[in-house]
Amino acid sequence: MKFGSKPNRSIYANRNAEANARVHIIDQTLLPFVLEERTLTTWQDCVEAIQAMRVRGAPLIGVTAAYGIALAMQHEATDAGLRTAMHALLATRPTAVNLAWALNRVVGHVQNFDPAERADAAWEEAARIEHDDIATNKAIGEHGLSLLQALYEKFQRPINILTHCNAGRMACVEWGTATAPIYLAHQSGLPVHVWVEETRPRNQGLLTEWELNDAGVPHTYIVDNAGGHLMQHGKVDIVFVGADRVSANGDVANKIGTYLKALAARDNGIPFYAAVPTSTIDLSVNNGLAGIEIEERSGAEVRSVRGLDRDGRLADLRLLADSVAVSNPGFDVTPARLVTGIITERGIAKPAQLARLIT
Amino acid sequence: MKFGSKPNRSIYANRNAEANARVHIIDQTLLPFVLEERTLTTWQDCVEAIQAMRVRGAPLIGVTAAYGIALAMQHEATDAGLRTAMHALLATRPTAVNLAWALNRVVGHVQNFDPAERADAAWEEAARIEHDDIATNKAIGEHGLSLLQALYEKFQRPINILTHCNAGRMACVEWGTATAPIYLAHQSGLPVHVWVEETRPRNQGLLTEWELNDAGVPHTYIVDNAGGHLMQHGKVDIVFVGADRVSANGDVANKIGTYLKALAARDNGIPFYAAVPTSTIDLSVNNGLAGIEIEERSGAEVRSVRGLDRDGRLADLRLLADSVAVSNPGFDVTPARLVTGIITERGIAKPAQLARLIT
Repeated sequence: MKFGSKPNRSIYANRNAEANARVHIIDQTLLPFVLEERTLTTWQDCVEAIQAMRVRGAPLIGVTAAYGIALAMQHEATDAGLRTAMHALLATRPTAVNLAWALNRVVGHVQNFDPAERADAAWEEAARIEHDDIATNKAIGEHGLSLLQALYEKFQRPINILTHCNAGRMACVEWGTATAPIYLAHQSGLPVHVWVEETRPRNQGLLTEWELNDAGVPHTYIVDNAGGHLMQHGKVDIVFVGADRVSANGDVANKIGTYLKALAARDNGIPFYAAVPTSTIDLSVNNGLAGIEIEERSGAEVRSVRGLDRDGRLADLRLLADSVAVSNPGFDVTPARLVTGIITERGIAKPAQLARLIT
Repeated sequence: MKFGSKPNRSIYANRNAEANARVHIIDQTLLPFVLEERTLTTWQDCVEAIQAMRVRGAPLIGVTAAYGIALAMQHEATDAGLRTAMHALLATRPTAVNLAWALNRVVGHVQNFDPAERADAAWEEAARIEHDDIATNKAIGEHGLSLLQALYEKFQRPINILTHCNAGRMACVEWGTATAPIYLAHQSGLPVHVWVEETRPRNQGLLTEWELNDAGVPHTYIVDNAGGHLMQHGKVDIVFVGADRVSANGDVANKIGTYLKALAARDNGIPFYAAVPTSTIDLSVNNGLAGIEIEERSGAEVRSVRGLDRDGRLADLRLLADSVAVSNPGFDVTPARLVTGIITERGIAKPAQLARLIT
């Protein structure tokens, strides 16, 4: 897929003549105001990039962590070196399960090799995870597209999709999860319009807006508070979100505020879907509401906001003094009873039939 | 009630030796960053102050509009002058019914007088509306306090109240509507803690935070997205909001996003109350969801945000280009089925019994 003048990928990696890996990301803390690539050369760089949300979105976090292991193996390919890097990368963020999934996949692979071969082995496995993500998201898109086609056949007018946060290509490698069906619909000529929610406190809606604008998909930006009102007035046909973890019972952990939109969708008879790679499904957690750890992030994210000042320069503006108590949970859990279905690369499942889909 | 070093009133008026009225407001578009009084000397000043949200909150808009008529009568006390000012003030904002109520009350009173007496008559009636508002809100507070007392008797720990927007003294003259029970509880030694929602796009949560901080009421600031998650985890005991209009069937029009919190309250068995003066109840509208006009405000409110720059100066930061389509509904309607009760100065009514309370 092509994106005008902008980089095609949220992440890419290459190796120089000495086989030293370099991982290139877009610093998403500067988007959409400044488009700046950043090169990661150590696993510590990867830790910092994930923690600071220079990369974010469950799939992209997983890919970045996988490359972190590859970078670690270039410097210290011992079992101790593997453990140190893995534990540090795993500790960066607690909610997204793709992080653990990708780390387990690379580390499990690397452990079979002698230290001298581990850098190559880790590099290759990380690259496979990266490339698999693209194919996975495209398959998610094709399954989700069938839902949009059915709505279009029913309504014979542009289909209005509401999305929260950024489950787009900036959260993945390409395509995105929740956005993949939208991109495919748009490319196939099926008319769509997207309600893009701002998604406080980090305003990831700005990333979604930036993506959709680049792809030429019609969209309207709204504050998070507006989604329910639009649903009450028939302006939303379907809700597509991503997820950071889906438990065995179909509970969906996603960006804070998702639960409120699922409630409004249910109250107005609007289908609500989470689009995820199966690597986001965590069968080890039976009940998401009780068992998924919700990351409490710094109040600094709420106390200030980033944008462009009157001279067009990137600037942070303070809304609240440090003395004000702030609570900043990063995610919430939408109970399975509010979820119409989970769209994966293997098909669409009702929450109760999720385990059957992936085992 | 006392508020440290800050002005006691969101609005006050006085007349000089020549009986020329002056209306003094706090410019709420600068709060909480800059505390600046502004003096209104013409009805056009009042129109501008209401439209630009220098004053906001249904009760305060009503008082400001009433004084607008008084200012108009100083300059042109004819029937035509009365009509011109009334229509312009009425057109400032469509959702809050207190505006029409206050205007009808002053104009209805003034029409009984000869032009030479109208300035005095309008001034006196506007002042009565202002003073009545204080007594009304205190009575709302006393009724609402009984709910907090009952929760405290049950839980024997601090009671957690979630509120949206600012239904505080900055939305009224003193006390506020949703905050009046909280202030009374705090003054009486009943321990309370308030979850203050940011309330995008205008961030009126900053006003509520500013008020509660000044009154010494424990509180924590959250983004609008976080309220549902807190309710799921037992961290909210009751929701108190204000309203801009309540229809005869008990539907509640309030700041955009209120409906989402009412859904979450219902989903978690948490009582949800709107606190309003009876002047906010519009018996002429049977069904709020169908019959209350929702103001669509400028996308500029979403595209930029106000705060303090790194030098501590008031500044606006741009989040979105003008080319991005934005939808910005100012209010939503919470259906009566989600409302536990309406707290008024005359007592607390279930939505279905509202008409009985006020007729």
